[in-house]
Amino acid sequence: MTGRVTLVGAGPGDPDLITVAGLKAIRAAEVIIHDRLIPAELLAEAGPGTTVIDVGKIPRRPGPSQESINELLVNYGREHDVVRLKGGDSFVFGRGGEEVAACTQAGIAVRVIPGITSAVAAPELAGIPVTMRGLTQGFTVLSGHLPPGDAGSSVDWSALARTNTTLVILMGMAEIATISETLIANGLPGETPSAVIASAGGPAQRTLVATLAGLAAAVDAAGLTHPAVIVIGAVAGLATGSAEPIESGSLAS
Amino acid sequence: MTGRVTLVGAGPGDPDLITVAGLKAIRAAEVIIHDRLIPAELLAEAGPGTTVIDVGKIPRRPGPSQESINELLVNYGREHDVVRLKGGDSFVFGRGGEEVAACTQAGIAVRVIPGITSAVAAPELAGIPVTMRGLTQGFTVLSGHLPPGDAGSSVDWSALARTNTTLVILMGMAEIATISETLIANGLPGETPSAVIASAGGPAQRTLVATLAGLAAAVDAAGLTHPAVIVIGAVAGLATGSAEPIESGSLAS
Repeated sequence: MTGRVTLVGAGPGDPDLITVAGLKAIRAAEVIIHDRLIPAELLAEAGPGTTVIDVGKIPRRPGPSQESINELLVNYGREHDVVRLKGGDSFVFGRGGEEVAACTQAGIAVRVIPGITSAVAAPELAGIPVTMRGLTQGFTVLSGHLPPGDAGSSVDWSALARTNTTLVILMGMAEIATISETLIANGLPGETPSAVIASAGGPAQRTLVATLAGLAAAVDAAGLTHPAVIVIGAVAGLATGSAEPIESGSLAS
Repeated sequence: MTGRVTLVGAGPGDPDLITVAGLKAIRAAEVIIHDRLIPAELLAEAGPGTTVIDVGKIPRRPGPSQESINELLVNYGREHDVVRLKGGDSFVFGRGGEEVAACTQAGIAVRVIPGITSAVAAPELAGIPVTMRGLTQGFTVLSGHLPPGDAGSSVDWSALARTNTTLVILMGMAEIATISETLIANGLPGETPSAVIASAGGPAQRTLVATLAGLAAAVDAAGLTHPAVIVIGAVAGLATGSAEPIESGSLAS
């Protein structure tokens, strides 16, 4: 066994927001197994003989199971230098922990190269700091896939409403009304500044700011859809659009 | 006025964990104003004529005030391409929001290039995913600079103890006993797996795993000091050291 698996976080969307280490791993890979939301420019960095496999899952449609992805990683990883390329960071709602465990159990060497998570970068690219002296001393990152009231949810949303941290919710667009109503019912003021950043890091990035009470209606009216990040807390009011977007460009320069 | 200011997050310590966009900005900068915990390799990427200014603050010692840093940014930013280089991410306890505001108020163009935050990457490089299906559905990032009971703290630690999210605490080594006692007093079980990752991303990285109740004593016994990241929650038990560290190397390859 001479292969290994490297989990690489591709970042929030702009190809230049991958790490230098991640880009090197892509260029050196024999096999790339990637998710759907990966900048095409990154795949173009792979060498000419590289095997590229798309295991992207489309939300709410059947796709390759996690078990079959784990199998691919283990089978290729026995003899090849495999890069597992994911959007954002592999360990922030990315199933990276499960893939590391699968490789380790099979005796495959595995390493993880962190990526820029959209939980921090999507607000950042819209001018919103997740922490800010005088406004907030922490932030909490949650998934909307298991919203308040879902039988599978282990998060205590009533406690969350009282932590006084910035709340950042990924994959929450389908549940935005439930989430905001639950937080308000548990004591978070309806006037709390809130924002939605859609398609962060790409040319189609859009930011919407509203009160927590008005957020779901504002999102509907604006027609914003996923991928999007929801930010709830005083810092959301700092979204200005005054910070220029970073330039996308050739990775070769 | 033809200058601008670019806030660049340098990541958690390994020079290869900066983004491609951040590295490009360093190479193009006329002036670099940097904090203390910046990999020397990154400063070596600056062009030969670049002005490099160290405004690093040493913990608990007087250093340049934030106001004087803001002044530097504004003064150089009027006519020069300035990179403000910080460890981690500028918007995660990095005062980036204040620096953006100072530049914007002075009419200086400002942009932000996200960095890998040690809040996610330090656990990750120790094999700990901050989220993991079946274990935790979110994570909360806090600063230990304003611990429980501090008059300046606005965080509700009793609510935090009940969110059921992974807790990640930066700059918390001096307050680790207070933090763990407060969480236990508010209902978090003393047996909760906990970890400390010191000097993450560098050659001196060390990981310690203990129960929440035993964490402060274990840290004392091991002699771990800052910089370090504290992780509290079931995922801390996954720290294995089985994931290989990424390779540090030349940025030029």
